[in-house]
Amino acid sequence: MRKVKVAVNGYGVIGKRVADAVKQQEDMELVGVADVVTDYRIKTAAVLGLDIYAALPDKAQAMRAADIPVAGTLDDLLRKVDVVADCTPKKIGAANKILYEQAGVRAIYQGGESHALTGHSFVAQANYETAIGRSSTRVVSCNTTSIVRTLGALKKAGLLKRARGTLIRRASDPWEAHLDGIMNTVIPEKTIPSHQGPDAKTVDPDLDVVTIAAKASHNSSHLHTWWVELTRSASKEELLAAFRLAPRIAFIRMHEGVAALNSTIELMSDLGRRRGDLWEVALWEDVLTVNGNEAYYTYQVFNQAIVVPETIDAIRALTGLESQAERSIQKTDQALGIAKEFLRSSEHVLMA
Amino acid sequence: MRKVKVAVNGYGVIGKRVADAVKQQEDMELVGVADVVTDYRIKTAAVLGLDIYAALPDKAQAMRAADIPVAGTLDDLLRKVDVVADCTPKKIGAANKILYEQAGVRAIYQGGESHALTGHSFVAQANYETAIGRSSTRVVSCNTTSIVRTLGALKKAGLLKRARGTLIRRASDPWEAHLDGIMNTVIPEKTIPSHQGPDAKTVDPDLDVVTIAAKASHNSSHLHTWWVELTRSASKEELLAAFRLAPRIAFIRMHEGVAALNSTIELMSDLGRRRGDLWEVALWEDVLTVNGNEAYYTYQVFNQAIVVPETIDAIRALTGLESQAERSIQKTDQALGIAKEFLRSSEHVLMA
Repeated sequence: MRKVKVAVNGYGVIGKRVADAVKQQEDMELVGVADVVTDYRIKTAAVLGLDIYAALPDKAQAMRAADIPVAGTLDDLLRKVDVVADCTPKKIGAANKILYEQAGVRAIYQGGESHALTGHSFVAQANYETAIGRSSTRVVSCNTTSIVRTLGALKKAGLLKRARGTLIRRASDPWEAHLDGIMNTVIPEKTIPSHQGPDAKTVDPDLDVVTIAAKASHNSSHLHTWWVELTRSASKEELLAAFRLAPRIAFIRMHEGVAALNSTIELMSDLGRRRGDLWEVALWEDVLTVNGNEAYYTYQVFNQAIVVPETIDAIRALTGLESQAERSIQKTDQALGIAKEFLRSSEHVLMA
Repeated sequence: MRKVKVAVNGYGVIGKRVADAVKQQEDMELVGVADVVTDYRIKTAAVLGLDIYAALPDKAQAMRAADIPVAGTLDDLLRKVDVVADCTPKKIGAANKILYEQAGVRAIYQGGESHALTGHSFVAQANYETAIGRSSTRVVSCNTTSIVRTLGALKKAGLLKRARGTLIRRASDPWEAHLDGIMNTVIPEKTIPSHQGPDAKTVDPDLDVVTIAAKASHNSSHLHTWWVELTRSASKEELLAAFRLAPRIAFIRMHEGVAALNSTIELMSDLGRRRGDLWEVALWEDVLTVNGNEAYYTYQVFNQAIVVPETIDAIRALTGLESQAERSIQKTDQALGIAKEFLRSSEHVLMA
C-alpha cells in the first residue's frame, strides 16, 4: 500500500495532535516533526520516538545543547516528504511558503494564515474534492470549521436560510495559561462581524452568516450560540436528522449531566482520549429549539483538536491519496475514533 | 413638599443601593431598612445611620445580640410607611405580599418574583403611566431591564422588527464570590429562549425577542450581544440617535480604552460613584454595526445597580408622587447622576 510521507512543521497545540493523527492513519507515514523550542514541548516528541528537525538552521545547536536528538534541518526533512502540515504560529506559515515551494512539497496551512496565501480554504465535508491535486490549502480555524460543519449540515438538508451566531471564546490555550490570562472580565471583539463568519464564506461563499465574538475568563474551549433562519418551518427531529447525517457533529445532553464545557472535557478524558481531545462539534441535543422557521442551538468547540481531522483529510486531498471526500472522512474518523454519541455504546460505531 | 415614606425590606445587593437612591431623592424619605442577617452587611447600615428593623420577629434577638441597633420588627416599620421596596431573595417577596397587603402599604418587588404576583412589570421608560396608583408592581431583572431600554429605544424610533440576543452572564455576585464560583468553564442555559426574552414581553408584549444565555467564569457583570432586524434600512447614525434619545443608555468606546467589562467598572470608580455602580446600559458606540436592515451591537449590564433607578421611579408611580414618566425619570437621574457620556464633560448634563 502506498503511504504518503508527511512532515509536521511546528509541534505546538495543533502540530502535536496532527502528528499523533498522522501516525494513526494506515495510508500515511510521519517522517518527522520540526520546531525551534528547547523545552518540554519538543522533548515530549523525543520521548514518543518521533524524528525531530530544527525548523530554523541556527536553532539546531541550541536544541542539541538541550539534549534534543536533532536529525537535521527543516530543509533535510522537506527533501524526504510529499506533504508538510504547517502548524507554526500565525504568519510564520506565510513566511515558510517559499521553502515548501522550493522543495516541491505540497503544503497545508492552518487558519491563522490568510485565505489569499493558498486561494483555497478547506473543510473536508464541504469542499474536499476541489482540493484534490492542489499544491496547497488552508484548514480554517477551529470556530470557522465548526460553523461550516453545522451550517453545512443544515444547508445540505435544504433548511438553511441565514444564521447569526455569538461565540464565547476561551481566553488563551491551557499550555500558556501562566503567560497571559483574562481575569473576571469579558472582552467583546472590536468589530462586528468577527472574522469567523466571513472566514466561513471562504469555504462556502453561499452562507449568509454573521458572527459576534467575545473572549471570556476561561481557557477550556469555546461556546457558540446560534440563531438560524430556516428556509421553511421544520421540526426539531428534522434538524437533529440533518446534524446526525453530517460528519463530526456529536450530540451531548444536559439531562445526562453534560452541563457545561468542563463536563465534556472530563468525559473525553474518562473515555481515554489522549489530552481529552474532542474533535467533534459537541451539540446540546436537548437544548436545541425549533420555533416555526427559526432554530436555536448551542455547541462546544474544543479549539485545540477540532481542525486535526480536517488536516488529515487535506493531506489526502492534496496528495490525491483519496478522490472521494466521504471515504477520506471515514478513514480519518475510524483511525481517530470519532463518534456521533459518547454514552450510547450501541451507537459507538466509529469509536476506536 | 410632600415626601413619600419608604421602607426597604432586604438590605442586600439591590436593597442597599435602593436605600442609597431613596435618600438621594428630594421627594422621598427613607424610614428604615429590614433584614435578617447579623454580619457586616447589615452593620454597614448602622454605620450609615439607617434605622434597622428585623424582617422576621424571631431574628430580632440574634441581631441585638450582635450589637445591631434594632428599632423594631418589619410590622412596626410597615406601619410608618407609604410604600415598601421588597429587595429580598427570590420567592421571599411573594411570601411577604400578605404582610404588605395587611398593612395597607404599596409594594415594589424585584425581578426574581413572577409577573403573576403583581400582574404588572415595570420599566420606567416603557410603562410608567400604567403603574400610577397601583398597589404593587414588579421591577424586572437586570438583563430584562436592559432589553426593554434598548429595544424600546429602537421601537420608539420605528426601527425595530425583531431581535435575537445572546447574554454572557456573570457567574455570581461579587459579595458571594467565596461561596460559589464557576472556574474555567461556561454553562449554557438549559432552555432556549432563556427567561429574559419572554420576561421583556411582560413589559412590552409587542417585542419580537428571543434570548440565549450562558453563565461564564466571571462575576463582574453581564455582556449582551444582539442581532436586530430593523423595519427598514437605516444608518448607524439613526441607530445611535435612537439610543441617545432613550433614557439610561450611555455610550462607551473601544478606542478610548474601554475594552472590556472591567474597564467600565474601573471608570465608574474613578468617577467617584459609590461601589463603582453603573445604572446605565453601557453600549459600545464604535462596535455597533449596521448592514442594511440589520443591526449588531454589544453592551454591558451591571446587574447590581441597573434596576435601582427603575425601583425609584416605581415608588413615584405607585404612590402617585409624579404622573409623568419623563419627569420622574429626570428627577431620579438628576439625583443619582446618571449620564449619557462619561468622558465628555460638555455632555455631562446629568452627572451629579
